[in-house]
Amino acid sequence: MERRLERELESLKTSLIKMGSVVEEVFGLAIRAVLDRKEDLAQKVIEADERINSMELEIDNAILDLLALQQPVASDLRFILAAQKINNDLERIGDHAVNIAESAQALSRKSEAEMLREIPQMAAMTNTMLREALDSFIQLNPPMAQTVLKTDDEVDDLNRLVARRVIELVKDDTRTIEGGLELIRISRNLERVADLTTNIAEEVLFEAEARVVKHHAEEKKDTHHENYREP
Amino acid sequence: MERRLERELESLKTSLIKMGSVVEEVFGLAIRAVLDRKEDLAQKVIEADERINSMELEIDNAILDLLALQQPVASDLRFILAAQKINNDLERIGDHAVNIAESAQALSRKSEAEMLREIPQMAAMTNTMLREALDSFIQLNPPMAQTVLKTDDEVDDLNRLVARRVIELVKDDTRTIEGGLELIRISRNLERVADLTTNIAEEVLFEAEARVVKHHAEEKKDTHHENYREP
Repeated sequence: MERRLERELESLKTSLIKMGSVVEEVFGLAIRAVLDRKEDLAQKVIEADERINSMELEIDNAILDLLALQQPVASDLRFILAAQKINNDLERIGDHAVNIAESAQALSRKSEAEMLREIPQMAAMTNTMLREALDSFIQLNPPMAQTVLKTDDEVDDLNRLVARRVIELVKDDTRTIEGGLELIRISRNLERVADLTTNIAEEVLFEAEARVVKHHAEEKKDTHHENYREP
Repeated sequence: MERRLERELESLKTSLIKMGSVVEEVFGLAIRAVLDRKEDLAQKVIEADERINSMELEIDNAILDLLALQQPVASDLRFILAAQKINNDLERIGDHAVNIAESAQALSRKSEAEMLREIPQMAAMTNTMLREALDSFIQLNPPMAQTVLKTDDEVDDLNRLVARRVIELVKDDTRTIEGGLELIRISRNLERVADLTTNIAEEVLFEAEARVVKHHAEEKKDTHHENYREP
């Protein structure tokens, strides 16, 4: 039984890593669709959403089975609940990638639309955050997860800056309003992706902490020969 | 053991109902802050966020304990996982209420800012959706949950309409841009709340289905004297 649980936890982790790499790729495509004004890339992002949704559902079902059939406890249970949240965060990042891709399509139809330099900055930062959040999960690397948390504030600042820049643009020339609203939409979606990578990083920290707690508890148990059976 | 599980499931449901009613109240305040331009109500919403966050954390911890100590299976487990998702949805509705309240504050500082009639329409619809989603959860009422799903499309349409109306306003008079962006922000947050109430309604349907499945399984068991013990 113990070994089967371990095997299934490993398989759950592998599924999440796979989902993470798909979401990372799709998010990268959405960014390129915006920056290079490529409608075909945007279309790919929109089409990938269904795949991401069914990956989420599969992982959710695997988690349900794991909980029901293996009845894991302590840090295994914490890992599973963290996995469930990361799964949901990844699916939501996929949704934001779709929103960004839709804005990319709207922008590519307006040849005159301006780009603000804050957008590629935010995109690069958010992309790095996602990569680091996923790597920190794979390697269970708390310092890397901490880096993700720090970058989130900078992305928030850039998001606010984009709104102010768009207001200036529109006051200067009202014809920029449609494009400007798309830039605000892209910026806001990037900011939300940054938030979700922050959630993932926090789950990694929570999970790492649980491991530490488990480790200490086992040391303690070894010393005192505790035999906790209740409740 | 069985009885203790039942008691704790009942207590989990009560906590969620309580959280639901707090979130509903706070969301109602946020709407009134926008429509009546009341900065003090907006402040109340912002202050309530911490309370909602700690309610979410408490419920999450109760769920963790329930899973670890009671090791529930089948439809009880499904109920707990649905509860976990509803808990998270409610907390996110609280976050959107804060965003709406912040926009209400920004708007109340601009006496000249216009209001669009779509905003109170969306607010009323979303408010009803939230009430119905929570009631359908309390009463485990699938038809009521279905009603929530149907209204979601109408809110989406209104959200798109708000963006178009703001574009017209701004093209007419660029001084309306700041207020217009706040209206778009409010509209988008209302639309997101509608999405989250839809999630809750879907969880209720999922949960109701599990009950039906359980009910059928029990009937079947009674008839055929099945004795399923594996895996």
